[in-house]
Amino acid sequence: MSQATESVEDTTLSAGVDAVVSALSVRYDNRLSTGEAIRAQHANTLTWHPAKLPDAVFFAETAEEIGEVVRLCAAHKVPIIAFGTGTSLEGHINAPRGGLSIDVSKMNNIVEVNAEDLTCTVEPGVTRKQLNDYLRDTGLFFPIDPGADASLGGMAATRASGTNAVRYGTMRDNVLSLKAVMPDGREIRTARRAKKTSAGYDLTHLMVGSEGTLGVFTELTLKLSGIPESIAGGVCPFPTIEAACNATILTIQMGIPVARIELVDELQVEACNSYSKLDLKVAPTLFLEFHGTDASTAEQVALFGDIAAELGGGPLEASADPEARSRLWQARHDAYWSGRSLRPGWEAFATDVCVPISRLAECVTAAKEDLEASDLVGPILGHVGDGNFHVTVLVDPDDPDMLSRAKAFSGRLIERALAMDGTCTGEHGVGEGKIIYLESEHGPALDVMRAVKRAIDPDGIMNPGKIVLDND
Amino acid sequence: MSQATESVEDTTLSAGVDAVVSALSVRYDNRLSTGEAIRAQHANTLTWHPAKLPDAVFFAETAEEIGEVVRLCAAHKVPIIAFGTGTSLEGHINAPRGGLSIDVSKMNNIVEVNAEDLTCTVEPGVTRKQLNDYLRDTGLFFPIDPGADASLGGMAATRASGTNAVRYGTMRDNVLSLKAVMPDGREIRTARRAKKTSAGYDLTHLMVGSEGTLGVFTELTLKLSGIPESIAGGVCPFPTIEAACNATILTIQMGIPVARIELVDELQVEACNSYSKLDLKVAPTLFLEFHGTDASTAEQVALFGDIAAELGGGPLEASADPEARSRLWQARHDAYWSGRSLRPGWEAFATDVCVPISRLAECVTAAKEDLEASDLVGPILGHVGDGNFHVTVLVDPDDPDMLSRAKAFSGRLIERALAMDGTCTGEHGVGEGKIIYLESEHGPALDVMRAVKRAIDPDGIMNPGKIVLDND
Repeated sequence: MSQATESVEDTTLSAGVDAVVSALSVRYDNRLSTGEAIRAQHANTLTWHPAKLPDAVFFAETAEEIGEVVRLCAAHKVPIIAFGTGTSLEGHINAPRGGLSIDVSKMNNIVEVNAEDLTCTVEPGVTRKQLNDYLRDTGLFFPIDPGADASLGGMAATRASGTNAVRYGTMRDNVLSLKAVMPDGREIRTARRAKKTSAGYDLTHLMVGSEGTLGVFTELTLKLSGIPESIAGGVCPFPTIEAACNATILTIQMGIPVARIELVDELQVEACNSYSKLDLKVAPTLFLEFHGTDASTAEQVALFGDIAAELGGGPLEASADPEARSRLWQARHDAYWSGRSLRPGWEAFATDVCVPISRLAECVTAAKEDLEASDLVGPILGHVGDGNFHVTVLVDPDDPDMLSRAKAFSGRLIERALAMDGTCTGEHGVGEGKIIYLESEHGPALDVMRAVKRAIDPDGIMNPGKIVLDND
Repeated sequence: MSQATESVEDTTLSAGVDAVVSALSVRYDNRLSTGEAIRAQHANTLTWHPAKLPDAVFFAETAEEIGEVVRLCAAHKVPIIAFGTGTSLEGHINAPRGGLSIDVSKMNNIVEVNAEDLTCTVEPGVTRKQLNDYLRDTGLFFPIDPGADASLGGMAATRASGTNAVRYGTMRDNVLSLKAVMPDGREIRTARRAKKTSAGYDLTHLMVGSEGTLGVFTELTLKLSGIPESIAGGVCPFPTIEAACNATILTIQMGIPVARIELVDELQVEACNSYSKLDLKVAPTLFLEFHGTDASTAEQVALFGDIAAELGGGPLEASADPEARSRLWQARHDAYWSGRSLRPGWEAFATDVCVPISRLAECVTAAKEDLEASDLVGPILGHVGDGNFHVTVLVDPDDPDMLSRAKAFSGRLIERALAMDGTCTGEHGVGEGKIIYLESEHGPALDVMRAVKRAIDPDGIMNPGKIVLDND
């Protein structure tokens, strides 16, 4: 039984939920579920956040249905939680006030590909791998790649990024326009398909990163990139994590247009070796990829090699073999799972700070020292070309003191990042986990966010308890 | 006397204005002006929009002063119009309800340059040329260049772009964070200086392009780019405007990373030759620039040359001489003025549609045909790599029928652009001129914009009559 039936206020909620469930059951018998297993699956938060189940799950197939369901929920003030693949890391899909999970995974049509404009339009349940498989013969690809094979709707909702962001940007830069059902049940489209516009407020960017708190995405128009003529890359070990960070800083500052530059610390290298069957040297390592013409990737590799050598690192073991490269990047994408495999049965406490690149080495080394001083185990990896890194603190669920220490560690990490003019979350989003840091990060700007939320969702039915709190 | 004293409602306004003017006169005697000439200068709309003067002009020097003045205006519900250089083209700085123009041109300090992070922080009155002069020795530059030497605050407010946008993006992509005094007088900062973030709603992008209707910018943190090692470029004539557009489409679709690709039609070439003392062949022409290493710019020039030849155009007359190049681009930036010089004493009716690149040739040729059918004179130029072009219709102020024909032409141009999934304004902004098209462009999304405006500026004091109308 979800938490939604436990208090006086929630009795009203529950009556509303009953009404919504009854109405939907009649119309969509086989696509509405109130079973415990399905509800639990839709609150599987992947991390230390305790699961808070929705009261029911609706498997949507069209935008019209979502409009209808949102109007119904709005009439009964029943919370709505949009669900893609459930791979978010901050409890985004939890239902602290119960309500209806709207699962869009069946809305996975690729609506159109406009190859000549380098854009495509997809339904929100399409995953990034599905899209890239579909695009394979066009010479184009969609570059944003968080570890998981997430839905593009979810990626837009959390403003996701990943390993290619240093060169291709994040979801912020690659969603050209989107459609969403707003809390009043009306579907809007945030922008036209033109590459640029000055026609009023930028609703596209307002919705990207809104984590389902302003509306439910029903369609996304995305920018595509040309598959590079030449791809070079490999791994490069360093004597210290500081040296690896400094190599990253120099690479960015010299303007080398690196496509991927990923830090993997020695503990994470061990985990990758064991989980993904690699035999990398156990040392702080950069995973790299360069995109361009044959000449330009060769030039980039050489320039980076010089930087690495100067810092005592290297050699860069480059591989032209696509299969070896693909195994390497699969290991990188699986790092969350390989990291967790270091302590089977434990939970993961994901951190996600991002700082100006000039402060990266300082921030990473301080985190590493703090980790040791806190008697915590946490592999470190990151999209360091953007100044973004993750310490995945591993937490024994039977040791409440360890969870406290992990929380305190995360708090100090964020404090340091904020003091460096960084952010508490570079790509995971706020969800439930980072809410307490928004006041320090944003100050009075948080009130503007609250005003926007109230204006668009006055009854607070859209993913309540995320980004801004109900009673703010 | 401004329009603000003409109606019953405006009597209240006027009393409010009197109170604000009295209070500010005491404190800032020499920086508050109610003189006709100064007020007229602050409503100089450059185009066909009739000037609507503010009641007074305040020359701000600090963010604290702006906070104080906004609180004062808010208390008396007096409209506030932020003013940078006054080079916007859609009546953005008009004061249809009177009020106080806040001139930020004295706030022109460069606060800091973080060369190692490729960012800088400036006050809103810094102009783009001032910033680039300042950056000269750092190896970095700020790429966004609308024709005018506009203030960076104004450029952010209108989401400006210009000739480099095809490669470097627009103000949307190059403002990392900003500070603004909001309608309640509080100053907010929209984001930290980290390159990416997922920490809540994207207020940076909400404010960029808000045209002073949500707050007054007091500081901007901008992304900088490295000055390319090699710059190549020149002009390339084509037999028809369609061929020039098709060359642009192919260049973009082939992924040539062109830095500038500007269409100048034969009439505009004539104007440039005469006004800027050039001797270009009178033909539809592309002005081009390629950035990279010596090898890569040579490669780009060769690839483009092949495309041009295939379409019957060329040769690309490239010049390695920086001075010749600079004369060429100055002529391009002065095109608004050279275009107007074709009919001295007439006014300009600027259009600004932007369409998906695949529809560019079709949209430009239809505009050209319509221009002739409408018996109008209008040179055409555009940032065609983005699908954005301007027909600068020249209008005899003594011929009201000509202005009507220009308005009708502009309306049809926008209708065609919208039918091609384009936008009514690629970079000029809405101001007063494009308001009537937002309903067609955005549909129900316009209501969301209205809700955001009401939430942030409930009394409608920030630049009223722009983007969303007061009585919406």
